[in-house]
Amino acid sequence: MRRFLPILTLLLPNIAAAAPNPTPAEIVAHAPDAAWADVPPDRLLVMTLADGAQVTIELAPQFAPVHTGNIVRQARAHGWDGGAIVRVQDNYVVQWTTRDGKAKPPAGFVAHPPAEYDRARQDIAIRPLGFPDPYAPSSGFWSGWPIAAEGDRVWLPHCYGMVGAGRDMPPDTGDGQELYAVNSEAPRQLDRNLAVVGRVLTGMEHFGALPRGTAALGFYASKDQNVAIRNISLAADLPRASQPHLQVMRTDSPTFTEYLNARANRTDPFFVRPANGVALCNVPVPVRPKP
Amino acid sequence: MRRFLPILTLLLPNIAAAAPNPTPAEIVAHAPDAAWADVPPDRLLVMTLADGAQVTIELAPQFAPVHTGNIVRQARAHGWDGGAIVRVQDNYVVQWTTRDGKAKPPAGFVAHPPAEYDRARQDIAIRPLGFPDPYAPSSGFWSGWPIAAEGDRVWLPHCYGMVGAGRDMPPDTGDGQELYAVNSEAPRQLDRNLAVVGRVLTGMEHFGALPRGTAALGFYASKDQNVAIRNISLAADLPRASQPHLQVMRTDSPTFTEYLNARANRTDPFFVRPANGVALCNVPVPVRPKP
Repeated sequence: MRRFLPILTLLLPNIAAAAPNPTPAEIVAHAPDAAWADVPPDRLLVMTLADGAQVTIELAPQFAPVHTGNIVRQARAHGWDGGAIVRVQDNYVVQWTTRDGKAKPPAGFVAHPPAEYDRARQDIAIRPLGFPDPYAPSSGFWSGWPIAAEGDRVWLPHCYGMVGAGRDMPPDTGDGQELYAVNSEAPRQLDRNLAVVGRVLTGMEHFGALPRGTAALGFYASKDQNVAIRNISLAADLPRASQPHLQVMRTDSPTFTEYLNARANRTDPFFVRPANGVALCNVPVPVRPKP
Repeated sequence: MRRFLPILTLLLPNIAAAAPNPTPAEIVAHAPDAAWADVPPDRLLVMTLADGAQVTIELAPQFAPVHTGNIVRQARAHGWDGGAIVRVQDNYVVQWTTRDGKAKPPAGFVAHPPAEYDRARQDIAIRPLGFPDPYAPSSGFWSGWPIAAEGDRVWLPHCYGMVGAGRDMPPDTGDGQELYAVNSEAPRQLDRNLAVVGRVLTGMEHFGALPRGTAALGFYASKDQNVAIRNISLAADLPRASQPHLQVMRTDSPTFTEYLNARANRTDPFFVRPANGVALCNVPVPVRPKP
């Protein structure tokens, strides 16, 4: 997969239209401003690891309002500062906890959230994926998120980079003080079994490169191996100059349709046979810094 | 996903039968010897990185005989010794090269292999996955491998840990001196566009934890960042005492059926809602050291 840069792109003037048969990356690079939506700073977590690496996480209160409320309360109470990544299981999840666990919940914290594993479909109009999904009768995108659906219920799928709330055995639902991010082939058997609370927008490569834990389930074998979290803040609470300003592609835009079609049918010059199909989790919704 | 060890298992005697509603891991742990097949040492590569980390790769001459022939010739000529991992793209691939690239091919090396991207179905009897695959009209397992099929053609899918031969633009097919392993959500748009030559059996966690490259396409930005390969040997050529002896689960065994069903329908106590579905690449064929 030593790939040349597509020669056509180099010869064409750098205008809004991409080359004929553009790659998905070219479509994203040429996407007009109208194809992007700002990520609200009150839904954006900024996590800084001990070495300064930064991971941003968009929360999904549309799907898990009580869990995300707890997470934001912990961020505002500095409950994540001094927490740690305690588990990295290869081809599964990266998992981290608050500093004090269940010891010191902040005011307004809900100790036993409801099972926010799926929600009513209501006004959610799904832009269909257009290909079969082995995990759901229908799936697609809505408001910048991948979505799976069955009847009148919809939920966020466990794609690469999605963030969920760890829990013990049912009926416990987790309280949002222990979170995980998917680092793997989508473990969608977890869909509707845990509360998905958001997704990593940037910095997933920092999670990806962490040493795998050697204890059962990929937990680090000793506390010395834990990866310290310097802090997790809500972007809205940071000084304006240090707030990340990110945009997610509008999944109801014509550009997203073009991108989805190109993910499902690569006709750019490297490819000799387009797949004519794509999995829900193999269409990551594009993200960019706000220009 | 803080999980308790299933209590039932601890209370039951350690007999061949697993607990009622066992996890996939429990099914694998209890699998009888008849459910396993030895990996032939003349199809097993042993890669040792500079820090001593070991990665084993089973070759698939059933699918890419010319490419795998080249790879074995390079191993026997010590062509991989002193090679390097040059690319780690997050959520895509880890890629490595021989020491001398195209400079010094060993005797018998085929400079321009045919496009071994798929093959005739012939005598391949697929054990069906039983769920839709967005990338192929049918898919399943054969002889320990995941398989996708269309009409009279079959191919190895780009699942996590699968290894392929890098290439430049078509009609070049790569010569097997530059290999990649999938470290991500299955990039199955690559199916039938590159020659899949094998799969990582053990040590994928070493690839997973490598720093991501910061140059275009995840290449390391300078040669200093490359991860040196000490050597890659064919297991059959190693002294018997240092040969890994691995087994892959027989995909035509009743145990594999039980495992596949459990992957598609988790009914063990952690789960509140089985998926009743699973993706081809989310059923990794189990591997164990030969007891």
